[in-house]
Amino acid sequence: MYTLEEIDRILEKASRLEVAGNEPPGLYEPIGYMMSIGGKRIRPKLCLLAWNLTGETLDASVLYPAMALELYHEFTLMHDDIMDRSDTRRGHPTVYRKWDENTAILSGDAMMLLAYRYLSHAPADKLPEVLNLFTETAIRICEGQQYDMDFEKMALVTMDDYLGMIGLKTAALIACPAKMGGLLGGASPAACEALYRFGWELGLAFQITDDYLDTFGDEKVFGKRIGGDIVENKKTWLLVETMRRASPEQRKSLDKLLQLGPGAREEKVAEVRAIYEELGVKEAAESEIRSYRGKALDALAAAGFPAGRTEQLVRFTDEIISRRV
Amino acid sequence: MYTLEEIDRILEKASRLEVAGNEPPGLYEPIGYMMSIGGKRIRPKLCLLAWNLTGETLDASVLYPAMALELYHEFTLMHDDIMDRSDTRRGHPTVYRKWDENTAILSGDAMMLLAYRYLSHAPADKLPEVLNLFTETAIRICEGQQYDMDFEKMALVTMDDYLGMIGLKTAALIACPAKMGGLLGGASPAACEALYRFGWELGLAFQITDDYLDTFGDEKVFGKRIGGDIVENKKTWLLVETMRRASPEQRKSLDKLLQLGPGAREEKVAEVRAIYEELGVKEAAESEIRSYRGKALDALAAAGFPAGRTEQLVRFTDEIISRRV
Repeated sequence: MYTLEEIDRILEKASRLEVAGNEPPGLYEPIGYMMSIGGKRIRPKLCLLAWNLTGETLDASVLYPAMALELYHEFTLMHDDIMDRSDTRRGHPTVYRKWDENTAILSGDAMMLLAYRYLSHAPADKLPEVLNLFTETAIRICEGQQYDMDFEKMALVTMDDYLGMIGLKTAALIACPAKMGGLLGGASPAACEALYRFGWELGLAFQITDDYLDTFGDEKVFGKRIGGDIVENKKTWLLVETMRRASPEQRKSLDKLLQLGPGAREEKVAEVRAIYEELGVKEAAESEIRSYRGKALDALAAAGFPAGRTEQLVRFTDEIISRRV
Repeated sequence: MYTLEEIDRILEKASRLEVAGNEPPGLYEPIGYMMSIGGKRIRPKLCLLAWNLTGETLDASVLYPAMALELYHEFTLMHDDIMDRSDTRRGHPTVYRKWDENTAILSGDAMMLLAYRYLSHAPADKLPEVLNLFTETAIRICEGQQYDMDFEKMALVTMDDYLGMIGLKTAALIACPAKMGGLLGGASPAACEALYRFGWELGLAFQITDDYLDTFGDEKVFGKRIGGDIVENKKTWLLVETMRRASPEQRKSLDKLLQLGPGAREEKVAEVRAIYEELGVKEAAESEIRSYRGKALDALAAAGFPAGRTEQLVRFTDEIISRRV
């Protein structure tokens, strides 16, 4: 079993892989740029940690499929940034802005294909399952993104709607690496399914944490201005839960607030945040995150791996869900 | 060996396959629309005809990978229509126009993934090769599209540049089905390579024919107004060859003509066409198409299939390259 340090070092080296060709540069430079602006590689890491439960030798037939997940994730961000008209990502200009829309479309398409090229290094006996898991996950992400875009035009989004959407858009691409690591490592079918469930619950916790930190996080730690979701009226867990709890009068006040323009940013963020706290939504989010974290760890425990072996994954779980929540 | 009529009927039935899911409709309706507006399915047909040289039972493990090629082709058109800002395709509004850009991006992404879902039905022992052929082809198409976009900004494009670009953008997705059919049918590695070369030369002939017909075709047969490429200053085989043959004065006249705006459409098309004829470029194109057709049929003959067995493919070759050229 590899140590966490060994896994981190292997991933660090892998991130310097020449993932793309060279010609034409108009196609490949934006890909190199996207892969260099601070992706955290949590999906490949999760895949390797899951693999580490049963796997023996960490070679290209495991590492390259793991890297495919990062390529794929970054591709979805490149296209999302066009669809959201986002100017920056992690403090850097988006490809859409640094180059142009056509570039972001085409280089994104190429990234998706490079992900499949990397995925294809899986051992032949595991390829059909790994390929199907990856493709079905990727399709789910598209469905989730569609729902997310649909929600922008909907006045009311229920909690079921929201959980369905983040399941497809986010949890699927956390569940996938967890299961993929199991498949590549030769874990039993039942263990692989348990790993998928672990990843799914973890993914939900992760997204709700993301929503929570956008309003209640520490700007210095979070790395960006808080309140962006409030400014954009994004249907986050916080907003959806608030709409659920609000009385008709409170909902009216909230709707008025949400209509405030960018000039009233400070006021809007402060007042919506206050409503969240007033209605107990802040604590409810913290409780919900703890609950999904618990479900994730239960699923992991039910996978049947020897005690002690899953410690790395438990530590990883807490790394990616803020411990202050 | 299946007859051509049987192959056509199987393809006709397959085209009515429910290729996409249903929810959310915003994601899947545009895909259904794109697959319904008159694609000619030449790539799946070529795949099945190549398979038919050696294959025995035409089941889903052959038919679905063949259909993947059509899904993939239509996906590239959906994204190309955004990048080219095209309003219509085959007389119908493009998805970009009928819905919007975000829809064309996301539904396109989903189509690419559906293609991989279909491709995954290939038999497990053939899947690695089929998958690699498909992914490498798809990456080539992206590279070709990038060169095509780069060429718009280049004053001079050489014939080598042009042939390189259409090789990647078009010929690759004709060579791929030809080889894929061989792989799925169990043809020898040498025969599969010969089929790839056959498809590549055929693809070059096909694209040059496309360029030729856009200027010299019969509008009633061609299905759209002629001269579109001239109006857009597209670097077609005709224009590239003309630039090669033109004297400095002729090149100056041509450059002036190319700068004419859409108001002078009739004049621009008529005069550029006249220059093509004057410089012998029309006959040169006809000769070049015949030459690539010849190379394609030579490659096919060198594949080593029994005489008579390749007749369907020879007929298919002439079907897709206009016989009046």
